[in-house]
Amino acid sequence: MERKIDVAIVGCGPAGLSAAVNVRARNRSLLLVGPKLCSPSLHKAHRVNNYLGIPSVTGEELRQRFLDHVSAAGITVTQSNISGIYPAEGKFQLQVRDDFVEAAAVVLTTGVFAARKLPGEEKLVGRGISYCGTCDAMFYRGKTVAVIAEKPGHEDEARFLAEMAGHVFFLPQYENGDIDIGGRTEIIREKVKAFAGEDRLQAVLLEGRELAVDGVFMLKEQLPMSQLVPGLALDDKHVKVDTDMATNIPGVYAAGDITGKPYQVARAVGQGQQAALSAVAYIDNKLVKV
Amino acid sequence: MERKIDVAIVGCGPAGLSAAVNVRARNRSLLLVGPKLCSPSLHKAHRVNNYLGIPSVTGEELRQRFLDHVSAAGITVTQSNISGIYPAEGKFQLQVRDDFVEAAAVVLTTGVFAARKLPGEEKLVGRGISYCGTCDAMFYRGKTVAVIAEKPGHEDEARFLAEMAGHVFFLPQYENGDIDIGGRTEIIREKVKAFAGEDRLQAVLLEGRELAVDGVFMLKEQLPMSQLVPGLALDDKHVKVDTDMATNIPGVYAAGDITGKPYQVARAVGQGQQAALSAVAYIDNKLVKV
Repeated sequence: MERKIDVAIVGCGPAGLSAAVNVRARNRSLLLVGPKLCSPSLHKAHRVNNYLGIPSVTGEELRQRFLDHVSAAGITVTQSNISGIYPAEGKFQLQVRDDFVEAAAVVLTTGVFAARKLPGEEKLVGRGISYCGTCDAMFYRGKTVAVIAEKPGHEDEARFLAEMAGHVFFLPQYENGDIDIGGRTEIIREKVKAFAGEDRLQAVLLEGRELAVDGVFMLKEQLPMSQLVPGLALDDKHVKVDTDMATNIPGVYAAGDITGKPYQVARAVGQGQQAALSAVAYIDNKLVKV
Repeated sequence: MERKIDVAIVGCGPAGLSAAVNVRARNRSLLLVGPKLCSPSLHKAHRVNNYLGIPSVTGEELRQRFLDHVSAAGITVTQSNISGIYPAEGKFQLQVRDDFVEAAAVVLTTGVFAARKLPGEEKLVGRGISYCGTCDAMFYRGKTVAVIAEKPGHEDEARFLAEMAGHVFFLPQYENGDIDIGGRTEIIREKVKAFAGEDRLQAVLLEGRELAVDGVFMLKEQLPMSQLVPGLALDDKHVKVDTDMATNIPGVYAAGDITGKPYQVARAVGQGQQAALSAVAYIDNKLVKV
């Protein structure tokens, strides 16, 4: 089933919530997608005193007020990971849980995060390492793949891969109880250390041994920024934007910590508003032009 | 008397108030200058529903919450017009009422306003038309000048000009009762229509007659943006900024409606925070370099 919406907002921190409220204020349809806890960094903030109009609150209290505002506007946060955003005929395709969503414009507000990469990972992305099961599974039909899950909640995607591949090593990088993937799946509870291969991935290195594989799927809670949208221009660790919050890709906007320092709430909320209104203006202009 | 401060914030709408709270949060000294009513446009707004965290309030209620926050932070708004901001030895000089203030950095948040200009005004600025009595009075010692006051509250500056000039026509462009300027001053209660002169101002045109003058001082409630800081780069009707809210002049930042559309509260508050933190970083970097 495919849903069509005006603006997809990826991330539910202050920037994403502000973008959502502003898209709604312009009477546009939207999808707001984020992790289980929206804005863990605000949640942990001891006290915020510089968000104008709400003096001296705890981060958690401010976060709750933001969520209440969004909820009062009739907007719900869809809890899901996003494994990629793909331009298609002037629009954008996102997989959200089991649905495909087609959005006319996208606002990225996923924040910054320590993009811990394993040795060899950067070099071998697109050469045997993929971040998106749905996108690349077809290349590994009948072959041997490793599925590395950073956190719980990726069992569905692992199960889908297990149906396609010949043999699957499932490597959960977290502690938990039962994992039932099914298919030709071997569960290995060991830490992944690195990847071997020059032009092409050869093996997954574990402590003291290695697994020879044709491909690796890394299921991450957050995609490396550069993998979020193909061709997205970065400025060191951040997404490049102009003062309208437009990225280098027409129809894709970004707001909040993802665009750079200072990592501050008011800045994120203001940029979220700007990105939302720019996205709405982008859609309006396209409609006029057609 | 000259006061030295870290950051001068000119304008007390949402962007200026947010900048003030953030400069204070970084423990820097500041001056916050603005008109009698901070943010008349917010004051008039029927309802604001898209400032995250404070759903569905009247503009006046939101304005009051902003002012309360600033007040709780121990910041007062100095009510004054600013007739110009002048770079001096890597710092900035502002005249605030009868004091001179030296600021290490400046944040401009004066908003946008209909810059109603009279025919001939644009052409003759700097060629007989001045916006700043204190700056240019010395050029008109013993000469004939017209002083055009847009609103009440400029009598002090007019009085100062009357002491320097040979003859002064005082042309209040507003209704009011007694005006006592003193000196060689002739009060004319007529509307100014235009200015005559090619390379240099010749006369002030009134309905059906003209006044031959050597110079004109236009005392405006808000300076045309281009006159606020000498050399400030504009982009059509707005001040040009980058994503850090830096203008083309090192040490001068801008935030809020003055930087462009959309004219929205959250955007202004976010930009005010960004401008304030950029200004503080600018001062810190200069200290390190010296």
